Amino acid sequence: MSKYKELEKKGTDGFVTLPAESGQEEKVVELINKWGSDAIRDSDGTELSPELVELGKQVYSTICLVRADQEWPRKNWDKLPQKFLMSEHVTATSDKVEIDPMENYFREKYEIDRNHDEKEWWQVFDRTTGEEVSTDDWEFDGDRGLVVIKNAKKFHVYTVNFLVYQIWDSTSMYNHISNGWTCPHVVSTEPYHADARKHLMDYFDNWLETHPNTDVVRLTTLAYHFVLDSDKHGVDKYRDWVGYMDTVTVEALQDFEKEYGYRLTSEDFVDEGYYNATYRVPKKRYLDWMQFIHKFVIEFGKELVDKVHAAGKKAAIFQGDHWVGVEPYSDDYPKMGIDINVGACEDGVALRRLADSPWDEVKEIRLYPYFFPDVFCEGGKPTEESVSNWVKIRRAMLRKPIDRIGYGGYLSLAKKFPEFVEQVSGLCDEFRQIKENSGKTEPYSAPVKVAILNAWGKWRSWLNNFGRDQKFFIKRPDVIAVAGSNLLECISGLPVEIQFMSFDDILTGGVPDDVDVIINDGEDGTAWSGGEWWVNEQIVSTIREWIYNGGGFVGNLGPSAYQHQGRYFQLSDVMGVEREIGNQVMAAGRKFEESGEHFITADAGGKLDFGTDKSYVFASSEDVRVLEANGLHIRLAAKDFGKGRAVYMAGLPYSIDNSRMLHRALLWSAGQESELKKWFSSNVNTECAAYPEKKCFVVVNNASSEQTTTVYDGDGESFELTLDAYGSKWFSME
Amino acid sequence: MSKYKELEKKGTDGFVTLPAESGQEEKVVELINKWGSDAIRDSDGTELSPELVELGKQVYSTICLVRADQEWPRKNWDKLPQKFLMSEHVTATSDKVEIDPMENYFREKYEIDRNHDEKEWWQVFDRTTGEEVSTDDWEFDGDRGLVVIKNAKKFHVYTVNFLVYQIWDSTSMYNHISNGWTCPHVVSTEPYHADARKHLMDYFDNWLETHPNTDVVRLTTLAYHFVLDSDKHGVDKYRDWVGYMDTVTVEALQDFEKEYGYRLTSEDFVDEGYYNATYRVPKKRYLDWMQFIHKFVIEFGKELVDKVHAAGKKAAIFQGDHWVGVEPYSDDYPKMGIDINVGACEDGVALRRLADSPWDEVKEIRLYPYFFPDVFCEGGKPTEESVSNWVKIRRAMLRKPIDRIGYGGYLSLAKKFPEFVEQVSGLCDEFRQIKENSGKTEPYSAPVKVAILNAWGKWRSWLNNFGRDQKFFIKRPDVIAVAGSNLLECISGLPVEIQFMSFDDILTGGVPDDVDVIINDGEDGTAWSGGEWWVNEQIVSTIREWIYNGGGFVGNLGPSAYQHQGRYFQLSDVMGVEREIGNQVMAAGRKFEESGEHFITADAGGKLDFGTDKSYVFASSEDVRVLEANGLHIRLAAKDFGKGRAVYMAGLPYSIDNSRMLHRALLWSAGQESELKKWFSSNVNTECAAYPEKKCFVVVNNASSEQTTTVYDGDGESFELTLDAYGSKWFSME
Repeated sequence: MSKYKELEKKGTDGFVTLPAESGQEEKVVELINKWGSDAIRDSDGTELSPELVELGKQVYSTICLVRADQEWPRKNWDKLPQKFLMSEHVTATSDKVEIDPMENYFREKYEIDRNHDEKEWWQVFDRTTGEEVSTDDWEFDGDRGLVVIKNAKKFHVYTVNFLVYQIWDSTSMYNHISNGWTCPHVVSTEPYHADARKHLMDYFDNWLETHPNTDVVRLTTLAYHFVLDSDKHGVDKYRDWVGYMDTVTVEALQDFEKEYGYRLTSEDFVDEGYYNATYRVPKKRYLDWMQFIHKFVIEFGKELVDKVHAAGKKAAIFQGDHWVGVEPYSDDYPKMGIDINVGACEDGVALRRLADSPWDEVKEIRLYPYFFPDVFCEGGKPTEESVSNWVKIRRAMLRKPIDRIGYGGYLSLAKKFPEFVEQVSGLCDEFRQIKENSGKTEPYSAPVKVAILNAWGKWRSWLNNFGRDQKFFIKRPDVIAVAGSNLLECISGLPVEIQFMSFDDILTGGVPDDVDVIINDGEDGTAWSGGEWWVNEQIVSTIREWIYNGGGFVGNLGPSAYQHQGRYFQLSDVMGVEREIGNQVMAAGRKFEESGEHFITADAGGKLDFGTDKSYVFASSEDVRVLEANGLHIRLAAKDFGKGRAVYMAGLPYSIDNSRMLHRALLWSAGQESELKKWFSSNVNTECAAYPEKKCFVVVNNASSEQTTTVYDGDGESFELTLDAYGSKWFSME
Repeated sequence: MSKYKELEKKGTDGFVTLPAESGQEEKVVELINKWGSDAIRDSDGTELSPELVELGKQVYSTICLVRADQEWPRKNWDKLPQKFLMSEHVTATSDKVEIDPMENYFREKYEIDRNHDEKEWWQVFDRTTGEEVSTDDWEFDGDRGLVVIKNAKKFHVYTVNFLVYQIWDSTSMYNHISNGWTCPHVVSTEPYHADARKHLMDYFDNWLETHPNTDVVRLTTLAYHFVLDSDKHGVDKYRDWVGYMDTVTVEALQDFEKEYGYRLTSEDFVDEGYYNATYRVPKKRYLDWMQFIHKFVIEFGKELVDKVHAAGKKAAIFQGDHWVGVEPYSDDYPKMGIDINVGACEDGVALRRLADSPWDEVKEIRLYPYFFPDVFCEGGKPTEESVSNWVKIRRAMLRKPIDRIGYGGYLSLAKKFPEFVEQVSGLCDEFRQIKENSGKTEPYSAPVKVAILNAWGKWRSWLNNFGRDQKFFIKRPDVIAVAGSNLLECISGLPVEIQFMSFDDILTGGVPDDVDVIINDGEDGTAWSGGEWWVNEQIVSTIREWIYNGGGFVGNLGPSAYQHQGRYFQLSDVMGVEREIGNQVMAAGRKFEESGEHFITADAGGKLDFGTDKSYVFASSEDVRVLEANGLHIRLAAKDFGKGRAVYMAGLPYSIDNSRMLHRALLWSAGQESELKKWFSSNVNTECAAYPEKKCFVVVNNASSEQTTTVYDGDGESFELTLDAYGSKWFSME
């Protein structure tokens, strides 16, 4: 049927890290052998038994240094992590206002900083006017723990920015509250202080000495916890996986001032209460702080890694709780000399977040589900979750192979689910096959280089771009799922080159010559769309000119959205569509008819999902082609602009149909339609990846049922192929 | 069963105006008698036959003076109505840009003004920066009809504001294009010019002389057409029923400058292309212009009415095509001395728009359907439309009775639909019964005075507040329907006192003492919600204080919405809810549970309709009571604030269930729950209105099926009552 010969599966072993568990040695060893593991790891705070160590596997030992020792910080209470918090909004009902800053913060977690002068470091704001209240007009009544404002304006709203110590580590608290842990509360040490840092290094030296059997030190991670704030009931009120809110100390603020020549205020962190969330368009001052802290983290990390190497071991980091400031996409990251970078991985985006970081180190993913009683219980469906994740991860991995996989938790729990054990067994083999066959060489890409444009650029490469729906999505606590649009997941498995680019990159260097398509994917006004960047005349005219001269543009959700001078989408001239936000209700959109056939929707078969019924988007140009609309609400449109092309999408949840449509939209916008059928599998449920250097290719089935497809090789010649549910087949090109 | 005796129906006649039609005298007379008409009217441009005149009915004759004479304006082409238009957006692809201002305007309708210096009156804008282009950098090439811009910034977007004459009356054009008329194009005369005005007055003198049989002169209306712009294909591109865009002349602009001390520019009208649509928060300069034109219209109208009175006739106005500037809610309106104010009426909002205007004149509604072949054709359902409209109109009319009803079109067409003839017959009788029994006295109201707060205030009382859904609503051309939220329709029939109030009213006078509840009903950022008014510190603190001291607040859609200082709903402290707009996605809303029973939802029975699945509204306060949510999207919430109370609604389409919920929400927010069961009918499908002065009350059934209800009198005593579908019963209180 095909001139290509299927590759034989080889029975290789290795490249799998498993959690070991003292007292369950027999079960553990059985799975270690079955899944072909070459490395075992402990978990934070547990030790491996001699039997396990003697298995002869690589031993990973976990340490989270800043929360390892509990004695020193308890004697040095002023060396705990700090942060600025904002109080609740309090409405002045008279000219005197009393605010308890800690109202609605968990008092077991935070303690007001009484060591530093509040008049110097705190701020009180009239949030009705935005003005700061003079320090003459407020006092902190330490006995009552209240800020008392005098001369308040009646019925204005006031807030207090204040400095706290974190007296309970966020993760420790999470485990107590969500997982019912009862061990003592863990406190972390703020490593910025010289004496704290010295203590931590001494502690680490000792730790290295007392872990002679350890081959790999798994740091989780380095210095600063991600942001996880808790309300008065201990319930999460705010999360930012990459936010720098927990990196504040008065010493660092003072050093920053010396280095940058200006002092940051509490409001630079509090940010009206939005705390510089990743969704906010970042401000220069916050970016400066990130750089400042990142530099410290790199130094701190290098010191640790040097010690690891000196002890004859390897250094791994797990992108875990304390990973803020690590920034694997920064230019300085490799200075630390880390050997293995481990990332938790539930989907293609997480895979690419790890795999695309531009440094040559061993990359290892920790897969879900975690072997924990929440999933591995009666009625739990670990296999379902594992398969669903793997299908997404696999397609991304075919674009960017990684080096190792692994699991976490209690292996003995997994053992109780034989179907799961079998599925993982196949998964480990399939992973090793991908690694072996692809040889980590570059897969074939269509001649389309994509730049994903947002206000962050490369430091926030492959970070989940959650939309508003995420906040209103009722989640299972044990699963990471994305509600609504998820263009990144769609693109994570497509055969195109991808880079992330900031508006600032365009300001300083224009659009790079090798970019073929710019994607702007984000909700209106957020950092992902760009917000006020879209009224920067240099940005818009540069992008317009670049598209006009032949560039491609794909806008999803609220591309170029910012109300200004009669336009809401600033690139509405380019895209041919505009959003109604309420002030031109009686202005008619241009008439349109839905286009019939189009290259972009040729495989869609009515199965596209834009995640919304109502886009409130209308045609603003006569020559826009509307490819899909719900009534008058346009959800997919395409338009020529000079020699370039633009596509508008109202939203793009992850699905195999949406991924194919995006694949086609990228080729169309780049004017490369003719390149589609090269190393391409026609059936939407299937995908093809080819490795020219290794002279092999693979076709995978992403669907839960058998699929037949036509596979096109690099010359456009084709053959028919049938794949089992979720199956894959490798072929030699020779 | 009841101690109250049902009132007998009296066989009264009159108070109905019908269109007459020469050549169809027999059919016309039959309906005139059947429906009890006391007045007949011609239509624009037709004459009544002697037989019709001799019936002895009041004769209404229609004249639209500014478009009556076609000779004079054709000889005075520079006295046609003018306006400022904005060109299409044109992207500069080189430093020279040519813009055809008329591109995408209907060339049969508009002609560029070449009489006035374009450098003085036109403007060219760089819409990328918002800067006006210097007049040195552009020229109007009259021969080619193009504006040529030099020194353009590449890939900036440019527009031209330019002055045109309107060479085809908007309504005449509408009739040609939509109704297939083929008569010559009508042109209107701009009455602002002294010579034009003199001509019109002479023409009118002659008209009065030649209409000796006319009893009532029906002016349709006075000077200026509403805004109705047409694209190059003649298709509507913009409508504003109350916009002043068509009131521009260079002479008026010059007079305005003399009177107000500053000159308006084209951009004051063009407004970035939004043309000061009613949905835009109005600016002071535009409000000044409205006052200036209104003053002229009042003078012009008074001159006409004086002539009518001098001729021994009465003056009616029909709030028709040329009604801009009339402003029946202005303090100066009564200066004209109009005797009869006629308004087209399709629902309760339209009824109240006419009925609530505060002047003592005869008020007449012109009902739908219009007797026209679009509805009165094979398969047409005029009865259905008539009943559906009447049920809405009736409940509003019971709150604010009017004096007369009427119809328009071709009576002979209506005659062909016997079911319709019967239904209207009953409708006319029921109207006369309402008029007779209520005696136009004040109906009983709950002790709740409501102020509807928006950026316009009383001049835009009872104007439809269409939301974004209206733009995307595919309408039947012959029916006026509202898509989405329609709080005004709900409230139009409720037993509360209602006034409209602007933010400026609050700035200058505070919240009036007699107001119990403020409603803020509008989409985010629009004039109806208030937009930037919500960051006026005096406004927000005044409203907060007023609520805190016992006021009620009902917010619908985007109440107090304006992004500022960490809040999107500026009254989120009052309402206890906040909207997620994308920048705090990872901040959790407060936990809430849907409240069980509450006064507001006691009659709802799960039938409420908020017009949206996703409000993106979360709880920002612990003590907000969530009365209805779709998952985590809050759609109805209530909260105490000091001694006051606030209610949030995510949207309120018109339904009888929603109306009842609003009724209860108003009473609850005013703290007047105990007043509900006074002159109240328990069944949601029914309503009660009582007239203490006339010692009678009525219960109406708004549903299409028989309903049984418990009726409560003013002392809270009750009796059971059954009403036919759409039926009503009147009772004596004695």
